Amino acid sequence: MGLKAVKGTRDFYPEQMALRNWLADAWRRVSVRNGFVEFDGPVLEYLDLYRAKSGDEIVSQLFNFTDRGGRDLALRPEITPTLARMVNARINSLPRPIKWFSIPRLFRAENPQKGRLREFFQWNVDVIGSEDVLADAECIFTAVDFLAEVGLTPGDVVVRIGSRPLTAAMLRKVGVPDENMDAALAALDKRPRVPAEAFADMAADAGVPAGRVADLCAFQDAEDLSAAAAAIGEAPGVADEIARLEALMGRLAQMDVGDYCRLDLRMVRGLAYYTGVVYEIFDAAGSLGGVGGGGRYDNLLEVLGGPAVGATGFGMGDVVLAILLEEKGKLPDLAARLDAFVVPGGDGQAEDVLRVLARLRRAGVVADASMRANLGKALKEANKRRAAYAVIVRSGSVAVKDLATGNQASVPDETFLAEPKKYLQ
Amino acid sequence: MGLKAVKGTRDFYPEQMALRNWLADAWRRVSVRNGFVEFDGPVLEYLDLYRAKSGDEIVSQLFNFTDRGGRDLALRPEITPTLARMVNARINSLPRPIKWFSIPRLFRAENPQKGRLREFFQWNVDVIGSEDVLADAECIFTAVDFLAEVGLTPGDVVVRIGSRPLTAAMLRKVGVPDENMDAALAALDKRPRVPAEAFADMAADAGVPAGRVADLCAFQDAEDLSAAAAAIGEAPGVADEIARLEALMGRLAQMDVGDYCRLDLRMVRGLAYYTGVVYEIFDAAGSLGGVGGGGRYDNLLEVLGGPAVGATGFGMGDVVLAILLEEKGKLPDLAARLDAFVVPGGDGQAEDVLRVLARLRRAGVVADASMRANLGKALKEANKRRAAYAVIVRSGSVAVKDLATGNQASVPDETFLAEPKKYLQ
Repeated sequence: MGLKAVKGTRDFYPEQMALRNWLADAWRRVSVRNGFVEFDGPVLEYLDLYRAKSGDEIVSQLFNFTDRGGRDLALRPEITPTLARMVNARINSLPRPIKWFSIPRLFRAENPQKGRLREFFQWNVDVIGSEDVLADAECIFTAVDFLAEVGLTPGDVVVRIGSRPLTAAMLRKVGVPDENMDAALAALDKRPRVPAEAFADMAADAGVPAGRVADLCAFQDAEDLSAAAAAIGEAPGVADEIARLEALMGRLAQMDVGDYCRLDLRMVRGLAYYTGVVYEIFDAAGSLGGVGGGGRYDNLLEVLGGPAVGATGFGMGDVVLAILLEEKGKLPDLAARLDAFVVPGGDGQAEDVLRVLARLRRAGVVADASMRANLGKALKEANKRRAAYAVIVRSGSVAVKDLATGNQASVPDETFLAEPKKYLQ
Repeated sequence: MGLKAVKGTRDFYPEQMALRNWLADAWRRVSVRNGFVEFDGPVLEYLDLYRAKSGDEIVSQLFNFTDRGGRDLALRPEITPTLARMVNARINSLPRPIKWFSIPRLFRAENPQKGRLREFFQWNVDVIGSEDVLADAECIFTAVDFLAEVGLTPGDVVVRIGSRPLTAAMLRKVGVPDENMDAALAALDKRPRVPAEAFADMAADAGVPAGRVADLCAFQDAEDLSAAAAAIGEAPGVADEIARLEALMGRLAQMDVGDYCRLDLRMVRGLAYYTGVVYEIFDAAGSLGGVGGGGRYDNLLEVLGGPAVGATGFGMGDVVLAILLEEKGKLPDLAARLDAFVVPGGDGQAEDVLRVLARLRRAGVVADASMRANLGKALKEANKRRAAYAVIVRSGSVAVKDLATGNQASVPDETFLAEPKKYLQ
């Protein structure tokens, strides 16, 4: 058992690692240019942090254990509780709005399947300390900025935007009591993925009166906000939420990402803690699970012992995203390359090869070397390593050979080493 | 308990995260320019992987648990067993030498103290598939290349280089039986950190005859290799190992890092699996624990079910390194900065601010915005966010204000947005 990877985890050989780094670099670059700063927490947290946020049922979904000191610990299944804990600890000194992102490694004790692993990475982007709809727009814009950055178009992906307050108001309207609200939301969250009859059974179990399931579905499937509002009728907060959603869509249009975004009241999200807008990012074909999603969660910091403060954000995992990018042909060639491959131009040049190699590396040139005395074989190795140039070391000079064109120029040793990058571009 | 970080773990607020990223970026950059490619494995491995390598005693030093499927799992305390497992799985298809590096997050269930935490990062650099001393030299050069890259000089740090085969030969010479070899090596590893009498007791416990402790110490403290060789006398393999060490020091001198490196036979290293050269990196003042270390481990892949194949490498943790860099004043200013801070030049410009902001970000400019109508306050915010430029949005034009000099230029809106970086440098 010790000699293979645990099921649901991944070995990142260099080719997989290059992809992981390419994704993380793009996530980081896009976050930073959108004004977010990076944070991270520990992989190990007290189990109580997740219990406090999500109740006891969360425990069965995560890896947890009691350590030798008797502490109940868990491997983090998401970063948001850590984010709330960290922000709460410094709530009085952090200037608001707090715009933070993270790329945590997360762990879930569930059966692995396509797009869902036990160990994965998830980009998280959050704005804390603002109740303005602009904060939601900033998060959605940042998600779209990334999607566009990696070459995904509105024909490839769509951000479907729903509303917890409107959905809850409609559930109340059809007669779902408050104590059943979470169960009814959970049933609605599954609706897009199950047949109509199965949904009707789930809705009934969650307290939706049998005669009102059709009304509920009609609300979710409404063509526009006014139809949805009409379905709900008069109810507290509905007009405000409609106005917020309209403002959000307006902001997204002003930021020129409206073509990636669509109002869709079927979006509900699984987690209990959302309080406002919710959204999910899907591949347009709908053949994969969600690429990511998020929403507003204004109560979470308070639940974890902090103040009442607006909070909104999203997560995007690496597994489904990588599948989608591969399907769309958007993954670049990430094979490792060298700027220079240093080879001996004759016998007895091993010392000079090492000297030149070391100088190149210290100057920031990505370089490796061969000790093969046979020049033909050494050049073959240079090509195999995808070197741009071969540097053939002779006595007092080097020959710099462009491996793409075959052009070669001889340069005095020290002239070359004084400004190597000049000769390697 | 759920509301604070677990003891021995760290919360990475943006300022700590910036340092962590700065270190990881430097590790990665230096590894790549030295011809290494990155890999990683899972955080969760089967406990047996560590038992196979290090025996049952390792279990008390790591976080382990039995999951719901009855699997005995561990949080990785080091990456080398994973490296050996991964290489073994593809040993016939990977071109050699295999030059891999990694920056894993690691976990140890030990009491936290200065420089030692329960959760930390460790740069690992390994060459597998070569028994040539050049592979050892490549690893040590790469370590020094990094130390120099972050500004540490031979006055700040030193790589102390010892030899397992010579040390073992000397232990046999003074009468330590083979079955006591690991215990005697472990005692020697502790010698630099304990008083002479305490070491004498530990040596006796490990089977060193009382009358020979002084000889053993004299060997370790030898001024040069010939004195050490004389102390051992005739023994199998000693002349070869002396020649290897001399070749190694010669290679390091050819690569111009000899001034960072010193032969020091007191270096033994704690782990049982080393088979050749061993080394540790210390701060020159010797006030901190080791910054890193490594050596040759030619048997490990075979122990884990693979072929007999040469392997050598080192690890360098982030905790002691960060303390050292801080003490030496080598940490750069890592505060987050913006290229541009977009502000409204008058009332009713909120939509235009968003439009300009979005265009700047999509063009790769690190940008944020204020919606404050008061220009003075908005510019104050721009300074607080360390923006290089304020972009004041007017009707049809923008004013680009250099916040360092106060210089300001008005540019037509679309002219600016067509090539924003031209105006922001």
